Amino acid sequence: MTHDAPVDLADKFALFAEHWSPKLVARINDYDIKIVRILGEFVWHTHEDTDELFLVLEGTLTIQLRDRDVVLEPGQLFVVPRGVEHCPKAEGEVKALLFEPEGVVNTGDAGGELTATVEEV
Amino acid sequence: MTHDAPVDLADKFALFAEHWSPKLVARINDYDIKIVRILGEFVWHTHEDTDELFLVLEGTLTIQLRDRDVVLEPGQLFVVPRGVEHCPKAEGEVKALLFEPEGVVNTGDAGGELTATVEEV
Repeated sequence: MTHDAPVDLADKFALFAEHWSPKLVARINDYDIKIVRILGEFVWHTHEDTDELFLVLEGTLTIQLRDRDVVLEPGQLFVVPRGVEHCPKAEGEVKALLFEPEGVVNTGDAGGELTATVEEV
Repeated sequence: MTHDAPVDLADKFALFAEHWSPKLVARINDYDIKIVRILGEFVWHTHEDTDELFLVLEGTLTIQLRDRDVVLEPGQLFVVPRGVEHCPKAEGEVKALLFEPEGVVNTGDAGGELTATVEEV
């Protein structure tokens, strides 16, 4: 992961089409900046050891929590606190940016077929 | 710093007008998400202990490095590696998001009158 050039998020999104598969676009210290396309409903899961930040770039993202829904429009961000079970969903495609420590697994404690290997784009 | 509600970046920018004074809008673990208005030229400085991420939301930001300029348009981000001297500048106002460990001082090793206390908005 080089730091030589600016990262253009639109250019990076153009490099992949799949949903629920975060791509690494930059790293700051030991934190990852990832981008992800979201469509449909994910799986309920928890990250026991870290908070997780979602910044919506396009579309409307609902982060379901057990006691309420958090709805994010473009230009809005939300931090899911560590240990809080959540399940993202989107009726139309969402483009979002994620900030989290390197090595975080997208499905947290849940595992399963939606677990993605994070590749650099 | 609560994590109860979404953070709307436009709403947060509407709460302040000054330049070069980053405002804290969210925290993830021990990292800060800050927003900043940039206009004119800053001061050359270095963060010896941390990388620093700039994501441009509006305007054109030039991050001067000693060997070249990095120009960022909206939707583009750049990570200034730790130890690399840099000096941001903008001919028109820029709105940017910063991601860095909590406690980072905006002027790094340079200090001086542009050193800002980071307030929550």
